[in-house]
Amino acid sequence: MKIGIIGAGNVGQSIGRRLAEKGHFVVVSFARSSEKLAAAAAAIGHDARVGTPGEAANAADVVVLATPWAATLDAAREIAPVVAGKVIWDTTNPLKADMSGLEIGTTTSGGEEVAKAVPTANVVKAVPPMAELMAISGPLSIEGRAPGVFVCGDDADARSVVLQLVGDLGADGVDAGPLANARYTEPLGMLLVQLAYLQGMGASIGSSLLRERAS
Amino acid sequence: MKIGIIGAGNVGQSIGRRLAEKGHFVVVSFARSSEKLAAAAAAIGHDARVGTPGEAANAADVVVLATPWAATLDAAREIAPVVAGKVIWDTTNPLKADMSGLEIGTTTSGGEEVAKAVPTANVVKAVPPMAELMAISGPLSIEGRAPGVFVCGDDADARSVVLQLVGDLGADGVDAGPLANARYTEPLGMLLVQLAYLQGMGASIGSSLLRERAS
Repeated sequence: MKIGIIGAGNVGQSIGRRLAEKGHFVVVSFARSSEKLAAAAAAIGHDARVGTPGEAANAADVVVLATPWAATLDAAREIAPVVAGKVIWDTTNPLKADMSGLEIGTTTSGGEEVAKAVPTANVVKAVPPMAELMAISGPLSIEGRAPGVFVCGDDADARSVVLQLVGDLGADGVDAGPLANARYTEPLGMLLVQLAYLQGMGASIGSSLLRERAS
Repeated sequence: MKIGIIGAGNVGQSIGRRLAEKGHFVVVSFARSSEKLAAAAAAIGHDARVGTPGEAANAADVVVLATPWAATLDAAREIAPVVAGKVIWDTTNPLKADMSGLEIGTTTSGGEEVAKAVPTANVVKAVPPMAELMAISGPLSIEGRAPGVFVCGDDADARSVVLQLVGDLGADGVDAGPLANARYTEPLGMLLVQLAYLQGMGASIGSSLLRERAS
């Protein structure tokens, strides 16, 4: 396919290179200077070309948006006239510039609301594996792995206690930092419900954090 | 530990049984009738007791909130007087009753905002693996698994195109349904950023959907 990439940073370059290696034809656009754009095309290799966002989008079967979030909506509006009916792959993450949260989309979490209701307790949020999985007897396992459970709370000792209990369940607990991170873990629970019941995957699913572990 | 469970449904019962099997002492509370509560205690086994939420919370080292979301904040307020300094494990998922979304916490997504900016295109949201992982050469792999990428969009053909490209990247693409589900997948990207850079795990992490696959 012809791939038009809007955004010449790490994400745009890596996606461009990996797709070019698979035989896709890549046009890359949107850098701070023509030198940086040329360097991005060179890093992608495989005869990748450079262009303006409009040129990259116009020539493409699929447009990959790989801009910093702050530039994303302007870039989208810029290419809007030439993308009718085309597939746009939006890879952006609407992170705040200091990575402290999402610019849009989340406002609070159930865990934070519970903490307001019991202000003197140490609330720890950890959405367990799917109820149907836990209801069976024996070890929790899907594809040979224990399903993951993210554990968020503002008190490190309280998180440790819940991490132990999560381990006693047979799940793979992950220390996920402060309670406000429940804004990012609760939606994952919602996603699993969507996949299981609305997308038809069924309840034998779970999420897992892949990471290198100390042996 | 002494575990006080608020909520006698599937989640409360399964967590109770699994923790009781590990030697924790369980008191279960909060059912529609005393018969259902007694049945929950019997299902948990291992001498699990029944009580009121206040009794369960008062006796416990750790209080497990396993209520339906609609009852959660009232239940939390009910036990508030007896949980000062205690660990409360909040397992609840603030789902709408019809599972169509979260009651609180999410309002929109980057993908949906991009779609508003390019209304004639088929926007597909798929947050790729960590940029540092993609920047290396060779297969994407952590713990022997390809990192997962959730693919959301309102047009099934457009989702298929992006799923193919995600596979060409070397990632494990998952069809995650409509674009509005980006409300649940984008926070996962944010969570990985938090874990990598703010919780000190480093960038060699990824998420994976565990599911039974057709062989």
